[in-house]
Amino acid sequence: MKFCSHCAASITVKIPLDDSRERHVCDACGMVHYQNPRNVVGTIPVFGDQVLLCRRAIAPRHGYWTLPAGFMELGESTSAGAARETMEEAGAMVTMGPLYSLLNVAHAEQVHLFYLASMTSPVFSAGEESLEVALFSEHDIPWQELAFPTVKQTLEWFFIDRAAGILTGNHPVTVRSRDILPAEKI
Amino acid sequence: MKFCSHCAASITVKIPLDDSRERHVCDACGMVHYQNPRNVVGTIPVFGDQVLLCRRAIAPRHGYWTLPAGFMELGESTSAGAARETMEEAGAMVTMGPLYSLLNVAHAEQVHLFYLASMTSPVFSAGEESLEVALFSEHDIPWQELAFPTVKQTLEWFFIDRAAGILTGNHPVTVRSRDILPAEKI
Repeated sequence: MKFCSHCAASITVKIPLDDSRERHVCDACGMVHYQNPRNVVGTIPVFGDQVLLCRRAIAPRHGYWTLPAGFMELGESTSAGAARETMEEAGAMVTMGPLYSLLNVAHAEQVHLFYLASMTSPVFSAGEESLEVALFSEHDIPWQELAFPTVKQTLEWFFIDRAAGILTGNHPVTVRSRDILPAEKI
Repeated sequence: MKFCSHCAASITVKIPLDDSRERHVCDACGMVHYQNPRNVVGTIPVFGDQVLLCRRAIAPRHGYWTLPAGFMELGESTSAGAARETMEEAGAMVTMGPLYSLLNVAHAEQVHLFYLASMTSPVFSAGEESLEVALFSEHDIPWQELAFPTVKQTLEWFFIDRAAGILTGNHPVTVRSRDILPAEKI
């Protein structure tokens, strides 16, 4: 059972008269409580030829490695949120680059957005949500211990595009994008 | 006053112990009710050298012209949501292209995402949320009667990039992006 956040009456799931899909509608005041996907924003922090990863200190995927990322907050932009998460989780100051990947995770009701980002110095530290933070060269990436398919896919694309020479700043960056399926595992 | 959607008790706005910003927290069950920005997804539907616009039949900006767009729904991807809105508002079937613009509208707690899209035929019709729908050449765009700054900015970028020959399908498309300021008016 759900309750109305506006008047505390009970909620019924039904299709409103002027709508085509089921919504959470208050039985007393009639307010429709819409639900929408949330954005997870993060970076690919690059220092030299290395990428910065965080080992998660929280569920889900405790102990697995991730790019710094988290839920976008009210009042910030996607890019500012990605920079904030990079500071909070990895203690790293970055110069933000362009959007690099957009991954739809419909079954988790999320959209994951990763930005290219440059570290101006090799300064980083584990935030409260990280067990450790470290720079990895391509051949050292812990592919079997990555936390999420969106992180794995973004890193795969990144190393392919970097090898092709299209992430040098002299080329326009095309956003990589695809849908993540429920069955996908690391 | 707000109420907990889980147990109907009262809500207090405060910073939880393990957090750094104010949240809506239930006084009884302790549930934190997170609030996050919502995505508005739409298309730039192109037929020949023309772009399809809808005149809004609903608030806000009733009577003003917009690209077809609306709130992304649970269970769909950004691209699928943009195609759905194009069918619902403009009655147009499109072949979806790449992401073209990402505009942060922090004061409205929204992110606007527009995809390039091709109409395979000049078939369209006004949906319930549109007064009329029409194809416009660049010199006929009703610039003074556009509904939102994100639509105006996306159309401006589109015509600049098209004139520069970089939307032909032979070039990688770079996502155009910027933050919309509260003071911006059409």
